[in-house]
Amino acid sequence: MASHSVETAPAPLLSFEQLRTALRHVGEERYHHRHPFHLLMHDGKLSRGQLQAWALNRYYYQSVIPIKDAIIISRSDDPAFRRAWRKRIIDHDGDATSEGGLKRWLKLAEATGLDPDRVTAGHEMLPATRYAVNEYLNLVRARPLLEAVASSLTELFSRDLISLRMDKVREHYPWLTDGLDYFEARLTQAPDDASFALNYVYTHAKSREEQERGIQTLRDKCDILWAQLDALYFAYVQPGWPPPGAFRIEG
Amino acid sequence: MASHSVETAPAPLLSFEQLRTALRHVGEERYHHRHPFHLLMHDGKLSRGQLQAWALNRYYYQSVIPIKDAIIISRSDDPAFRRAWRKRIIDHDGDATSEGGLKRWLKLAEATGLDPDRVTAGHEMLPATRYAVNEYLNLVRARPLLEAVASSLTELFSRDLISLRMDKVREHYPWLTDGLDYFEARLTQAPDDASFALNYVYTHAKSREEQERGIQTLRDKCDILWAQLDALYFAYVQPGWPPPGAFRIEG
Repeated sequence: MASHSVETAPAPLLSFEQLRTALRHVGEERYHHRHPFHLLMHDGKLSRGQLQAWALNRYYYQSVIPIKDAIIISRSDDPAFRRAWRKRIIDHDGDATSEGGLKRWLKLAEATGLDPDRVTAGHEMLPATRYAVNEYLNLVRARPLLEAVASSLTELFSRDLISLRMDKVREHYPWLTDGLDYFEARLTQAPDDASFALNYVYTHAKSREEQERGIQTLRDKCDILWAQLDALYFAYVQPGWPPPGAFRIEG
Repeated sequence: MASHSVETAPAPLLSFEQLRTALRHVGEERYHHRHPFHLLMHDGKLSRGQLQAWALNRYYYQSVIPIKDAIIISRSDDPAFRRAWRKRIIDHDGDATSEGGLKRWLKLAEATGLDPDRVTAGHEMLPATRYAVNEYLNLVRARPLLEAVASSLTELFSRDLISLRMDKVREHYPWLTDGLDYFEARLTQAPDDASFALNYVYTHAKSREEQERGIQTLRDKCDILWAQLDALYFAYVQPGWPPPGAFRIEG
């Protein structure tokens, strides 16, 4: 390539604001707030059975989050970082004063009419859900810690999606309102987490190339979320073909 | 559970014929010869663009096979096993006398009209393809060697599918006939491999439970193949929504 034989100055580091803008741009393009499955949800067009399929599959994603956060902690040699990141495990697994996000997600699943044991067993989830979520674990295990941290930056966008979703659930699926505790808690947890991770990526990316890899990792993480909704749409909306062995909508 | 408090005899080991029958039953139910994408292919109903999407995505699966076989070899302490399994890497990567399956698959992709560099770059594959295929690597890394070997048993069924496919390609897509070398080679390679793996699983499964785990692994492997076709169908047939950044059919 010609560009390799010419001396060029390395690309300049992005400022904090430029980095944040670049990350936000990824979100506008690729975050799953744009996915047709979520658009149907927010238009009130999903059936109870389709919401059950969503809650049941998404539980696997939820269940893996504290595991991926423990992997991230295990990869840092900085006690201050590990102490800060530990909050995320507590948010999901709970402690003496809080039931935690996993239990709250099960309450949501129960509000759709599913037996929580059926949800935690995981036998009926779509294989494609398992593969996409396991790729999140592959990512935080195999890539540099900076990128593992950057993969959490979808939380930059989750507050807006969650607050829209809470309004739309109350409007279109009032029978599901009792299951909203999970989202209520995330309204305050997610922005704190996003802010910490954004500062971490800005402070630790020592070259433009590292910054670009952080941005690419956010794209990759958006793909992981998007693929989960593609699989739900394919199996339970159109054409409506769950693979052999997966959850089937009753009636 | 009541069954845990009653002394029951352990389930008897399956005979070789019973094991083979159980595995064949999994194939009848779950192997991807039944997938709607393949049914369309064999009915001559896929466009050139849809066949390009298939060849481009499936290349990633092909490219990972010698890697998964190297992982399997790396997990055995038996030189005779390693020597026998090594054939599979050669089949795909080639040697002085044979170009190998990967090159042959690229010829198939080229026959669909794709530039092979575009295929090997991998930028346009569906994220869901990457996740399903990477799960195959997760499986052979994380599970007992017996199960890693059992995951290859889909080759018990591949010969029939490949010989049907070759007939159907010649009938419906004669312009693709030059790309059939890959399948031609697999007609003899796959049955040898399947026979070795079946004997291995039969000989090394020391309990009915281990036999059942081998059978379950074949189910899991079928799911990995099935999910790849679900993703292709969703993106390129119906509803026809490739995710952001993925290959798009021209025109």
